[in-house]
Amino acid sequence: MVSSSKGATPPIEVGNAADWRRLEPTKLTPILSASLDAFYEHGFHGTSVRDIARRVGVTVPALYYHHENKEAVLLALLELSTSDVLERAHAASADGGDDPVQRLANVIEAIVLRMTMRSRLAALESEVRYLSPENRQRYRTVRKGVEELVLEIVKEGKKRELFDVADAAETTRALLGMCQSIPRWYHAEGKLTPDAVARKYVEIAMKTVGSTELPVKPKKRRTADV
Amino acid sequence: MVSSSKGATPPIEVGNAADWRRLEPTKLTPILSASLDAFYEHGFHGTSVRDIARRVGVTVPALYYHHENKEAVLLALLELSTSDVLERAHAASADGGDDPVQRLANVIEAIVLRMTMRSRLAALESEVRYLSPENRQRYRTVRKGVEELVLEIVKEGKKRELFDVADAAETTRALLGMCQSIPRWYHAEGKLTPDAVARKYVEIAMKTVGSTELPVKPKKRRTADV
Repeated sequence: MVSSSKGATPPIEVGNAADWRRLEPTKLTPILSASLDAFYEHGFHGTSVRDIARRVGVTVPALYYHHENKEAVLLALLELSTSDVLERAHAASADGGDDPVQRLANVIEAIVLRMTMRSRLAALESEVRYLSPENRQRYRTVRKGVEELVLEIVKEGKKRELFDVADAAETTRALLGMCQSIPRWYHAEGKLTPDAVARKYVEIAMKTVGSTELPVKPKKRRTADV
Repeated sequence: MVSSSKGATPPIEVGNAADWRRLEPTKLTPILSASLDAFYEHGFHGTSVRDIARRVGVTVPALYYHHENKEAVLLALLELSTSDVLERAHAASADGGDDPVQRLANVIEAIVLRMTMRSRLAALESEVRYLSPENRQRYRTVRKGVEELVLEIVKEGKKRELFDVADAAETTRALLGMCQSIPRWYHAEGKLTPDAVARKYVEIAMKTVGSTELPVKPKKRRTADV
């Protein structure tokens, strides 16, 4: 297995998960930032280590000092992205207390905010299939965390007869699927703000789980970057 | 603008849309079939025209005789895939007569069958962003057809008070998003048959639009390939 980064890489800050509604600009290292641009524009296979080094303005050996290889860079970005959403989703769920309706609404809101405000990072998911089987597995374990959280909430809501779902697992996948598809069409320059998209998706998600109750309206939040 | 194929390309058969539940193996030309494999395995940018020629066992000039360049091959595959789903979706909708509930159920079923039974072709959508702006636009026009069809049904159902949706356009995107995410997790070798996935997604879609009525159970259909 390839490790995603070596010792000397500066720490990566992805914002304060406790304040899950607030998304500050992602602080990526120069190498990760340049790699994200390159992968987004040309895909994983269309990007060479040399391309990344040129963008950052470092030598190829300098790049290898921080990351074992190109796949390790992709994995680092994917893990960073997924860990961020996982932490925010957990904070959002906790913020909903014991109420499955509010917890689900918060988690959907957190996921949609990430999809709209960090859309390039979110779009990177289509490159996952180029990871080696071990790294794909490693990445999926993190991503699975989001699915497990949503599934647990859906099941709890069903148990308390707040939700009306036939198949909790499939409904969970459908909910995540609708959110994951947002980067396909969402453009930061478009009419819809991240807040507006989040509001709409919370409403649609409540329908999808057949919720008998409605969550409280989300508070206003500050809009940050990508 | 690059044309997707030149005169001499053999006609491509994608099945009989009228019998929308039946998906025969996609009949691709050897070049398109090899390209689909290569793009799926290594991505658009990770595949060279030489790679494709080698897989087919033809010379590079022979390949250029049929397709102007690599992008034209990708566009041909995407258009083929999207036209197929568009035709099937329209046939499925027509099969539901005048009833928005049955029409939506049929269209979701048709889309899910395509996502599960032609998953490699469906997964190619993540390569769309590598098309030139003109070709991306051309492709989007075809894909827009599916969205317009679903939107029209959702609006009609809302008008007749059969569906309870706040935002028909966003609900349509959410419905398509949940279907489009299926290739991320669906494996033909897994426990769920395409029929079973389609049944579950029809049920979830009915919830999502807040349908007051349920569609009739789909008929058994024959399972084909990828």
